[in-house]
Amino acid sequence: MADPNDADTIFKRFKEHSIAEFFKKNRQMLGYSGKVRSLTTIVHEYVTNSMDATEEAGILPEISVDVRELGEDKYSVAVTDNGPGIPKSIVGKAMATVLAGTKFHRYMQQRGQQGIGAASCTLFSLITTNKPIHVKAGTSRDSYECDISIDTRNNKPIITNAVDSEKSFKGFSVHGEFGDVKYEGGDHGIYEYLKRTALANPHVQIKLHEPDGNEILFPRSASSLPKRPKEIKPHPLGINASELLEFAQASQSRKISSFLIETFSRFTQNKVDEIKQAAHGIDLEKEPRHLKWEEAEQLVKVFKSLKWVSPELDSLSMIGEEGIAAAIKNILNPQFVSVSERKPRIFRGGVPFVVETGIAYGGGAGKKIGDAESGSILRFANKVPLLFDGSACAITDAVRGIDWKRYGIQKFDEEPVSVMVNVSSVYIPYSGVGKQAVSKEEEIIEEIKLSVQEAGRGIQRYISGVRNRNIQESKYKIIMRYISQLSGDLSELTGTERGRIEESLKELVDSKYRHLFADEGDGQGAADSRNGSKDSGASVTAN
Amino acid sequence: MADPNDADTIFKRFKEHSIAEFFKKNRQMLGYSGKVRSLTTIVHEYVTNSMDATEEAGILPEISVDVRELGEDKYSVAVTDNGPGIPKSIVGKAMATVLAGTKFHRYMQQRGQQGIGAASCTLFSLITTNKPIHVKAGTSRDSYECDISIDTRNNKPIITNAVDSEKSFKGFSVHGEFGDVKYEGGDHGIYEYLKRTALANPHVQIKLHEPDGNEILFPRSASSLPKRPKEIKPHPLGINASELLEFAQASQSRKISSFLIETFSRFTQNKVDEIKQAAHGIDLEKEPRHLKWEEAEQLVKVFKSLKWVSPELDSLSMIGEEGIAAAIKNILNPQFVSVSERKPRIFRGGVPFVVETGIAYGGGAGKKIGDAESGSILRFANKVPLLFDGSACAITDAVRGIDWKRYGIQKFDEEPVSVMVNVSSVYIPYSGVGKQAVSKEEEIIEEIKLSVQEAGRGIQRYISGVRNRNIQESKYKIIMRYISQLSGDLSELTGTERGRIEESLKELVDSKYRHLFADEGDGQGAADSRNGSKDSGASVTAN
Repeated sequence: MADPNDADTIFKRFKEHSIAEFFKKNRQMLGYSGKVRSLTTIVHEYVTNSMDATEEAGILPEISVDVRELGEDKYSVAVTDNGPGIPKSIVGKAMATVLAGTKFHRYMQQRGQQGIGAASCTLFSLITTNKPIHVKAGTSRDSYECDISIDTRNNKPIITNAVDSEKSFKGFSVHGEFGDVKYEGGDHGIYEYLKRTALANPHVQIKLHEPDGNEILFPRSASSLPKRPKEIKPHPLGINASELLEFAQASQSRKISSFLIETFSRFTQNKVDEIKQAAHGIDLEKEPRHLKWEEAEQLVKVFKSLKWVSPELDSLSMIGEEGIAAAIKNILNPQFVSVSERKPRIFRGGVPFVVETGIAYGGGAGKKIGDAESGSILRFANKVPLLFDGSACAITDAVRGIDWKRYGIQKFDEEPVSVMVNVSSVYIPYSGVGKQAVSKEEEIIEEIKLSVQEAGRGIQRYISGVRNRNIQESKYKIIMRYISQLSGDLSELTGTERGRIEESLKELVDSKYRHLFADEGDGQGAADSRNGSKDSGASVTAN
Repeated sequence: MADPNDADTIFKRFKEHSIAEFFKKNRQMLGYSGKVRSLTTIVHEYVTNSMDATEEAGILPEISVDVRELGEDKYSVAVTDNGPGIPKSIVGKAMATVLAGTKFHRYMQQRGQQGIGAASCTLFSLITTNKPIHVKAGTSRDSYECDISIDTRNNKPIITNAVDSEKSFKGFSVHGEFGDVKYEGGDHGIYEYLKRTALANPHVQIKLHEPDGNEILFPRSASSLPKRPKEIKPHPLGINASELLEFAQASQSRKISSFLIETFSRFTQNKVDEIKQAAHGIDLEKEPRHLKWEEAEQLVKVFKSLKWVSPELDSLSMIGEEGIAAAIKNILNPQFVSVSERKPRIFRGGVPFVVETGIAYGGGAGKKIGDAESGSILRFANKVPLLFDGSACAITDAVRGIDWKRYGIQKFDEEPVSVMVNVSSVYIPYSGVGKQAVSKEEEIIEEIKLSVQEAGRGIQRYISGVRNRNIQESKYKIIMRYISQLSGDLSELTGTERGRIEESLKELVDSKYRHLFADEGDGQGAADSRNGSKDSGASVTAN
């Protein structure tokens, strides 16, 4: 005679469920909310995986995206790359196990980081069309095709129809059918997503087949791969006690001192000596696995009190000043661009991150792009365009938090200004699983602000230059009008020919104002607003 | 001699990782970003669990929250309730396995729905202080205490120091120590969170011990539990083919026809007959497990084409019109409140949801509350206050999307107006795992807009009433001034005593404008702006 209200009865229903089941129920958390967004999310997941794979294998990416309409709100998506492929033994988990992948535990900048994206597409195909995805791969060893679906209850792949295939194809191709999706142009669509991807990744060639049969080629504009970001060690700044302890427990080193040098970046014997001075009572000669929590806490405090060399820049792959300027010109065709690039900073977990900003003014700048709230802000993370969730993003907060008046812009939303920001890091703290917004962490917002302010100074100089020129121009016009009157009067008074007087007066005035009519490329704004770049040609440009 | 760039080498690093590891790395997705927010998140998770547990057991909730400062950015949090407790055999998983709980698969409105919250606190305690949480429980069978930590690699609990404890305590108590947190007042702090919780849940009594020793009691203002929401069946509208197929495959029914009646709400034999007419070629007499995907798709289309009775309201537990009005008055003390309540609508998965809105005008309304972007919007989901991520929320989008001029409000951000919205549902589609924003799904934004517009009409009448009264009042004053002049003139012309003329003229004018000075409670706005409520007394009130 069980009491319906007691704990035993209530907890009869207690169950565990898999992460795949969780996301099946909460698909909006993966980016599958809204028909247009859902389709763009699928392409986003496949294309970022293709770029990561090709780049990791040192191959110039050639990616084709083929979208076809199958029926009402039903489309097929096929993405093919010329990458290294995926081994047969792993492809099932890679495509149909949520939280499985090569990237999760690595300190290396890649677009993917969670092992969720591809499996989420397989899940979305299953729940909207009940179809498996079809993959075709050619690696240096295997050539095969198969269908893959997902057993959501167990978060495991279901592989069917596996066959060996022709050896000629090298790369990876995935084809899926999806319901509850829609192909549309506009700022949230696939075309815009791929265009921005191509702009931020000039070494990538992308071909898009649109459902209406239209074929678009985004050709590569750079013929070499960007420098491959190095896999790095975590930086001592940003590490917390929990992480330090975990590293120590996994360490093979015989002493804490050597463990520190081996595990962390910028950790030298000198630093060990400094720590010995500062951290009294911690025996750095004992085995790392004997490190205690309190000691780890103390060490972290000491780390923070010391001076460290900045993290290596070569762990990060950025768009670069030229790239930012080129992308902005291509998207917005503005009158003026100012770009800034700063040194890497450290985030939680000891990972470096770096922010690049480009500000465009005039011309096509300032038009609403993406969702209303993000206004004229173009957001990128690890060179991947972020088209959704702008209002939840640290980039939006930082840009909106700037006192734009100080940069000559009275109202950010009402002037022809656009800001492009790219955050690069081994680990981007996204606000959600769908990776469309950077979490509003204080240190990241702060760094974005500094970067935007730096680029803003270039804009400020340009705008005040234009404003001065406008004032000078109207003065010139007034004087010229006055000259005509004056010449007549002087001619009457002196008897000198009016034409001659007018001409010589004009010459006088022209000589004072001549710079107004000089080549615009030499304008003041352009000359002054370089922000300490190596490649100063790109940092500020007036069209 | 492995090629470093081929698939075999690259995929050597392929690994699966647990959901606990995932959230350990991505703690911002759980709400652990920012010190103040992190502390509020902890209290939020424990308090919502306490409310769910007590209500499910039919117990009037008495909850105590005790926060103490332990050191720099370190606090302890203890939450104790008088609920049914948690059985000893389950407590480990309940508190330290991510994605384990009683609520995930149920069609019943509760605050928790994912089985993540409590485990996320255990995880956060582990990574910031390396401490287990301590629990104490008294169920009808067990009385015990123990420490619980989490093995993140395997997403499993680690229970230590388990002892039987005194039998007198009935309920559940959890105590944890947390780092990287901070206690603050203000709109994102625990005090505000609990205050709003108490206001939206008048049957709950909450005691808060603040770190400075201050004790605050939020007493209950209702002495009975709200009607317990019924566990319901999904409604045929909102079900998709995948869900229908899954239900069919799990069904014990012998025929599809009886399966439909047994599985879904509002499904009668009449509906089965209608479907037989509309869905040609589907044999409703065959076993449910033989239902094919194409048939499921066709059935879903037919469902959508039929007329259905709205879902049962008793599956939903709302704040109610009186509750909304009382909460708004308590928080904002405005001049005027207008409340609306609509019928339930259906969301994905066949779950009903209902939106309640209260709009406050004048007095304390309109002040910035919560994060800047959400302005004067008070957001609730299942009666739980949402203090964070306002800009990512469907409620914010809907309220901002209203053409406020139509409701007499020239600029929403510049007038003394506040909007309180509560969305109630068996399943709230949160935009993230941290459950602080409702996903921007089209049908939900649409329904919130309709609800806000309904309440807006009350506000519109009030504002236009006030405006009319202001016009009348200034007319009255002008006439009164004129009367004085006129009386003098008339007195001179007619010889009648000036005072008598003035008095009779005033009486004349007063009689026309008398309603201005009548009892304000009878004002036009109040009388007209009820929105079809049963309990009209509460729906619109002028203070």
